[in-house]
Amino acid sequence: MTIRSGAALALGLALLASVFPWLGGTAAAQGIGSRVFVVERASGSLAVYDLATRELLPKRIEGLGNLRHATMIFSPDLRYGFLATRSGQVSRIDLETLERAGEVFTSKNSIDNAISQDGRFIATAEYDPGGVTILDARTLEVVARHEAKFTRDGKELRSRVTGIVDAPGNRFVCVMMEGAEIWIIDASRPGFPIEHRIATPPNGMPYDAMITPDGRYYVVGHLESDRVSVLDLTRPKQGVKEVSLRDPAGKYERGAPVKLPHLASWAVAGRWIFVPLVGEDRLAVLDRATWRFERSIPLRGHPVYAVRSPTEREIWVSFSGEDDDRFVQVVDVESLSVEATIELAGRIYHMDFTPRGSHVLVSANRANKLLLVNAESHEIEDEETLQSPSGIFGVWRAFRIGL
Amino acid sequence: MTIRSGAALALGLALLASVFPWLGGTAAAQGIGSRVFVVERASGSLAVYDLATRELLPKRIEGLGNLRHATMIFSPDLRYGFLATRSGQVSRIDLETLERAGEVFTSKNSIDNAISQDGRFIATAEYDPGGVTILDARTLEVVARHEAKFTRDGKELRSRVTGIVDAPGNRFVCVMMEGAEIWIIDASRPGFPIEHRIATPPNGMPYDAMITPDGRYYVVGHLESDRVSVLDLTRPKQGVKEVSLRDPAGKYERGAPVKLPHLASWAVAGRWIFVPLVGEDRLAVLDRATWRFERSIPLRGHPVYAVRSPTEREIWVSFSGEDDDRFVQVVDVESLSVEATIELAGRIYHMDFTPRGSHVLVSANRANKLLLVNAESHEIEDEETLQSPSGIFGVWRAFRIGL
Repeated sequence: MTIRSGAALALGLALLASVFPWLGGTAAAQGIGSRVFVVERASGSLAVYDLATRELLPKRIEGLGNLRHATMIFSPDLRYGFLATRSGQVSRIDLETLERAGEVFTSKNSIDNAISQDGRFIATAEYDPGGVTILDARTLEVVARHEAKFTRDGKELRSRVTGIVDAPGNRFVCVMMEGAEIWIIDASRPGFPIEHRIATPPNGMPYDAMITPDGRYYVVGHLESDRVSVLDLTRPKQGVKEVSLRDPAGKYERGAPVKLPHLASWAVAGRWIFVPLVGEDRLAVLDRATWRFERSIPLRGHPVYAVRSPTEREIWVSFSGEDDDRFVQVVDVESLSVEATIELAGRIYHMDFTPRGSHVLVSANRANKLLLVNAESHEIEDEETLQSPSGIFGVWRAFRIGL
Repeated sequence: MTIRSGAALALGLALLASVFPWLGGTAAAQGIGSRVFVVERASGSLAVYDLATRELLPKRIEGLGNLRHATMIFSPDLRYGFLATRSGQVSRIDLETLERAGEVFTSKNSIDNAISQDGRFIATAEYDPGGVTILDARTLEVVARHEAKFTRDGKELRSRVTGIVDAPGNRFVCVMMEGAEIWIIDASRPGFPIEHRIATPPNGMPYDAMITPDGRYYVVGHLESDRVSVLDLTRPKQGVKEVSLRDPAGKYERGAPVKLPHLASWAVAGRWIFVPLVGEDRLAVLDRATWRFERSIPLRGHPVYAVRSPTEREIWVSFSGEDDDRFVQVVDVESLSVEATIELAGRIYHMDFTPRGSHVLVSANRANKLLLVNAESHEIEDEETLQSPSGIFGVWRAFRIGL
């Protein structure tokens, strides 16, 4: 385990530039493939970082609503990004001009969005009123609404909906929180029917969900539970399987189970699934094929996000708490152990690998920094000042299942 | 096993359009994310297909040289594509305007190219004179040349070079054919040093190579051999491991071993590697972690390409020979057996899944067709007429390791 600081880098880069003059900035027009959108949470704006020139673009996109837990998706032709916000606003952003190109309010409070595999429809998961709204990606017209109604003790109630993702077969998948039901929606058929409704276990309200990068499994987290529900999307009629995240050795047992972190924080790499557990200083490792608990990996603090390298060779883990939240630990997928600890900057919120895995973009919220970290040397190669940066969304998400 | 023809599709689409009017073509400006370049081999031109509008763009790009085995790579910012040709010409194409934006001759005969992970350098593998040329992607200036010299029986000879790919750590990897040596080139250091030279076994000249999609293994095929050499790029000093593709049961044994197909035709999915074997009616299946031979999957004819779905759930296989070359067989990765046979059009050359796996683009060379096939229903949803179409290159290759 080594600890490195990114501090002494400037000299190295200066030396490199003197022998490698063409490594300097480029004056050429910018392509959209290297654009990365970063949520500035406090100001409700989006900053745009260009990975090719390693510069923030001068233009910020503003007036986007409440950007807590905002998620951004991209059309497959890379003309537009779509941002869903907590204030129920869906904003469309032109990826070329970086102007707002339309917005629509689908609810008073939305949590997530997804784009169909054919790029034609946007689905938004909503808290208030609870349901799913489907928009035409081109006209932004509402083409369908599914109210999240369910019956309990003879009463008809309304549920919040969360965890909406795109899935193979031009489907959307989401989960009713109070309704405790997974929906599979067919985005290729008129009316966008809910073709499967799959109950989740009665104990522990669903609060978030994720899809594995191969689009096969949909995983639902439950409040106050150390179990998750796993649905094999190739066999939806089999229903969910409950999977425990408890370490059978018991050494990490806690007094009271609490909320798990957002499931977008899970990392799938090689044969394994890596799960950061709130309030415990470990990652749980599950077998990707069987979902069996394999082991715990001890960490320096309480993990928040686990992010896989595109090489599937390592997992980068961020932490909560002022003593730990400026550190990242790098877990080796082969040995299932921590191979490095890197000190970066205060309150790391999000991390995202560049598409071929050479670098990691890191938002440090308290330090007001966006960092570009070399994935091999762990040196900070660029640093930009942003206002309370949070989510990081590169346009290449257009080409990934479930993002 | 089912046999379907794409013939009866028009009616289905017409019905769909009547209830789903927004499924029609869009008049909006086109984004570059859905552009797919298709080599027209006989005329030495590139056609451009737009996956979003499902139309060929009116502009063809011409004057590109001999496009046999031409490969196209894309800059990470999606400003440019780079095409290497058998006549030694590297052409740069502006992805927005679809105009040629510069060209350079690096040799009399080149075979392959690759772009460094940082997007700054293009490397070309050359037959004549044998070597590797490295270009600045921005200026197209030659920044380095490595002549492929080797010594045998006291004489200095020149080798052809092939199989150049980008690899993690901003490396290029390629192999000397006559020189029988793998090179790992560091594209981040001045002079682009060859940091590792790894000998391949003396018997059977290397003729092609591939890198696994996670960037970990570099695999070299040998002429007149049923073995391949596998190099673990995380441990280059350990040298290559020889792996047999022979079926130990012997039932597929052939009289004389011949050339394997191009290694770009191998598919890596789930726990397995699928290898089409020239002149045998089977796929060999190897274990991805150990490289052990697992089993043979019997096929309807002699396979050419095996292509994986992004879901890693199935492999599509094309065939050689007039009796078979209009068919594709779909292999299920879980059961390791053929689950469907699809009849498409004459002499299928290349297949490429769309990024999230919903469709497969297929070039049918004798039929002069580019087909868009639904990956789930196996229906042909669009069909375009091209001149002897061959390689298919979507811009999303910019975001994949080794492409």
